[in-house]
Amino acid sequence: MDKYNVIFHIDEFAKGGMVLNNILNLILDMGKENLEIEMVANGDAVKVLIKGNEFQPMLEQLAPKKVRFCACANSLRNLKIEKEQLYDFVDVVPAGVGELVRKQASGWAYIRP
Amino acid sequence: MDKYNVIFHIDEFAKGGMVLNNILNLILDMGKENLEIEMVANGDAVKVLIKGNEFQPMLEQLAPKKVRFCACANSLRNLKIEKEQLYDFVDVVPAGVGELVRKQASGWAYIRP
Amino acid sequence: MDKYNVIFHIDEFAKGGMVLNNILNLILDMGKENLEIEMVANGDAVKVLIKGNEFQPMLEQLAPKKVRFCACANSLRNLKIEKEQLYDFVDVVPAGVGELVRKQASGWAYIRP
Repeated sequence: MDKYNVIFHIDEFAKGGMVLNNILNLILDMGKENLEIEMVANGDAVKVLIKGNEFQPMLEQLAPKKVRFCACANSLRNLKIEKEQLYDFVDVVPAGVGELVRKQASGWAYIRP
Repeated sequence: MDKYNVIFHIDEFAKGGMVLNNILNLILDMGKENLEIEMVANGDAVKVLIKGNEFQPMLEQLAPKKVRFCACANSLRNLKIEKEQLYDFVDVVPAGVGELVRKQASGWAYIRP
Repeated sequence: MDKYNVIFHIDEFAKGGMVLNNILNLILDMGKENLEIEMVANGDAVKVLIKGNEFQPMLEQLAPKKVRFCACANSLRNLKIEKEQLYDFVDVVPAGVGELVRKQASGWAYIRP
């Protein structure tokens, strides 16, 4: 069977717990072998991906399950956040919105908690 | 003509009125004979589907128009809400996000008010 | 190459700056020659499109880049806003949600900042 491809969009830091719980629940519901999941953070939600914050346990639980975490370079620049402050498993993309568009154009489902 | 299939996603109770108005406006715009509509509630938005709340008139207007209302079982469990507290026409799905993914994979449009 | 088609959905006035920045960043990332972009405003977000507000510089920068701005007629009526109060380049659509559904049914990507 083909995998389900899903991109989660978060642009509010306050939605961090909700999004990560959504991702965990999706994996529990559909099985990680059937899923390819990516989370794109832009706006102040890039702070969800800063090392040592409250989301560390959830992120470290999800990253080994092949969830890809992306941060928007424009947002990092606006907020003066350096790549080194982010978890090592985070990918920086030039523009979060560009990533969301390319993935949807390739047939990925979009969820914006 | 094929029907338009649309899934509405709500995960904030405060968005209840907005989502239900959106659904009503969509039906008025496109005609219910041309639409298949589902609303998936997760997070604290499952409370929109508890019997006797402020949304009862809108929900009872929409349910007979073949709008399907789904509540996320994970969210109900977290909030200690029993299925019996929800309107009789509500379907409980194992995970709201799983439902959103499956429907989009089948070509449904996604709207997140 | 085919263009990427993208519809942005905004239904909260407070998200005005975020959405317009997202659109600008998308154009910078992918190039306007590769994009067709539309923003649909409903709810109180139609106020983003009222002449003379804080968003005028951004809107006047984006409109000539072939970004189409649409306001929901239902929302305008509810908020007693006349078409004449909106920027000249704004199109009024019968229902914002109907526009979002039709565009997605034609393969447009959906982003809800």
